[in-house]
Amino acid sequence: MEANKGKGEQGMQIPGGQMDRPVSFHFMESMLPKVVKRRVHALKRLQVQCAHIEAKFYEEVHELERKYAALYQPMFEKRRDVVTGTVEPTDAECEWHSDREEEEELAEQVKEKASIEDAKKEEAKPEEDPKGIPEFWLTIFKSVDMLSDMLQEHDEAILKHLKDIQVKFSEPGQPMSFTLEFHFEPNGYFNNAVLTKVYKMKSEPDATEPFSFEGPEIIDCEGCQIDWHKGKDVTVKTIKKKQKHKGRGTVRTVTKQVPNDSFFNFFNPIKASPEGEMDEDSEFTLATDFEIGHFFRERIVPRAVLYFTGEALEDDESFEEEEMEEGDEEEQDDEGDDDDDDEGDTNKEQPQPAECKQQ
Amino acid sequence: MEANKGKGEQGMQIPGGQMDRPVSFHFMESMLPKVVKRRVHALKRLQVQCAHIEAKFYEEVHELERKYAALYQPMFEKRRDVVTGTVEPTDAECEWHSDREEEEELAEQVKEKASIEDAKKEEAKPEEDPKGIPEFWLTIFKSVDMLSDMLQEHDEAILKHLKDIQVKFSEPGQPMSFTLEFHFEPNGYFNNAVLTKVYKMKSEPDATEPFSFEGPEIIDCEGCQIDWHKGKDVTVKTIKKKQKHKGRGTVRTVTKQVPNDSFFNFFNPIKASPEGEMDEDSEFTLATDFEIGHFFRERIVPRAVLYFTGEALEDDESFEEEEMEEGDEEEQDDEGDDDDDDEGDTNKEQPQPAECKQQ
Repeated sequence: MEANKGKGEQGMQIPGGQMDRPVSFHFMESMLPKVVKRRVHALKRLQVQCAHIEAKFYEEVHELERKYAALYQPMFEKRRDVVTGTVEPTDAECEWHSDREEEEELAEQVKEKASIEDAKKEEAKPEEDPKGIPEFWLTIFKSVDMLSDMLQEHDEAILKHLKDIQVKFSEPGQPMSFTLEFHFEPNGYFNNAVLTKVYKMKSEPDATEPFSFEGPEIIDCEGCQIDWHKGKDVTVKTIKKKQKHKGRGTVRTVTKQVPNDSFFNFFNPIKASPEGEMDEDSEFTLATDFEIGHFFRERIVPRAVLYFTGEALEDDESFEEEEMEEGDEEEQDDEGDDDDDDEGDTNKEQPQPAECKQQ
Repeated sequence: MEANKGKGEQGMQIPGGQMDRPVSFHFMESMLPKVVKRRVHALKRLQVQCAHIEAKFYEEVHELERKYAALYQPMFEKRRDVVTGTVEPTDAECEWHSDREEEEELAEQVKEKASIEDAKKEEAKPEEDPKGIPEFWLTIFKSVDMLSDMLQEHDEAILKHLKDIQVKFSEPGQPMSFTLEFHFEPNGYFNNAVLTKVYKMKSEPDATEPFSFEGPEIIDCEGCQIDWHKGKDVTVKTIKKKQKHKGRGTVRTVTKQVPNDSFFNFFNPIKASPEGEMDEDSEFTLATDFEIGHFFRERIVPRAVLYFTGEALEDDESFEEEEMEEGDEEEQDDEGDDDDDDEGDTNKEQPQPAECKQQ
């Protein structure tokens, strides 16, 4: 509202126009003396040059990410081995100083209930000696709203076989992209050991809109063919339909395969079409897919254990809010938005000038 | 709300606890079999190692920013010269293809009013041949909410003398920081040619909270002494106060200098105190100051002309919303929040996986 403070006095208000809309600034620009407007255009040309330099900067950051991916690799391999039970960490590797007070408080709260549950478990005794960290990735899928929204009950048994998720960056000189690799142990559902999803990116200013450039952008993605075992494809379901013959009036039952909700549709995304030829639904679906790809790459894969324990979920509230719109928005809003007025949240507003995080 | 889907069934709900709060995950963790919990701790130790690698990554990004600052430099110098009128750009340097349709439409809208205004201007004829781009930076200060909130009427005359704002990064091997330099032409207000504000940053995981690390963070800032001409200091005002002598009953008038609202208080920020010893107001003030410093560095300086023309203001709506809370929140909210439900805004939600933008 303050945006145009003072400009009205100079007679720059558009009749009926909103004062805080850029349109009024545009107008202002066109009201400048011709010699000044000319100089502003010179600055705009310089700004376009800056946008192209910025694009190069992001390419170098991408290179830097490739370099660091190699540095993280040993840690991620160790993680996979611990998760799958291939390696048992030593005592030294497991030393962890938890927040004792918090633990004790929680323990107090649940003691009673827990003892009942424990008793139940004792009876059931499903496995005395679990291998690795059972359902590590499935737990993450269930915990993160963006993923649990896609998750169907029939997906869960399959995701128990997910061993690891890795991010691979495109090679230097290649078009910028990253690939999510979902590594599975042998399972009764499909033959693939790895399911992949490639996200293609663009890091250059648009010729017609150079100023909208804000860094690399996902522009397209590509899934993979899943080689399902017979009858195990959860992305389709078979429905029976009765058909009446027009002439004879006889009825026959036909079976038909129709798409079925499943996380595994993630590997069969809709195609991005070049220029605004998509309907709104498709655009929304694709935008959501890009967001999920970005989230896997930026958050889930780099810090999986924190999603498993729930420690990362608090930090990501703002990230996930974007995903709320179609779901149970109201309930979340009650907590999220109101909190913003709390003094205690002031810290959240403090900019974290992370040169390399967007969110 | 989906976060804990399924966990309730396994008896993991804390009595009275909220299912979507991380606390329930914490609890879950503590309910894990001991051997599994041990392995989770091993993963957490790996995660701490990753956080330290990430810190190095951000240091390298900072280096990259230093490198690119040098590449932007010629463009920024040219910008300064055009703004101040030191250099007149050539015709080729000023060629700009505006969106004709938009321009014509606007022209139509304002033709009538404009002609009246033009007539008025013709009479006034303040300067036939303006130098450079008059009030370039002042216009930006007026246009950006975050800055206009600080701006007082008495600041405006001073900011007309602002020639340039530059960002300088700390040298390699030095503690990470950046300095905002405000370059002024000789003026009747103070002797400094440059006013500076240094923002000190930290790019390492906190020992007690390693997982909260998200990249470099501003931790402190330092202003500079302004060498005001006598009687020109707009950051103080003189008030007269009547004092009555207790014994004699005589009244005398004393003058007293008290702080005055001004943008120039930006150069005399409150000091960050080490550990939570600040009251909420001070914390909020400092957090806002950090945000403004970050905004100068990330947005205003790199793309000043777009704030001058207003073109950047639209993109920054989300950035600026953070600043709305104390001001004219409702009015803005009506437009901002409602827009989010528009189909047309779907694109905004598309993640821009800019490896190097935070927003």
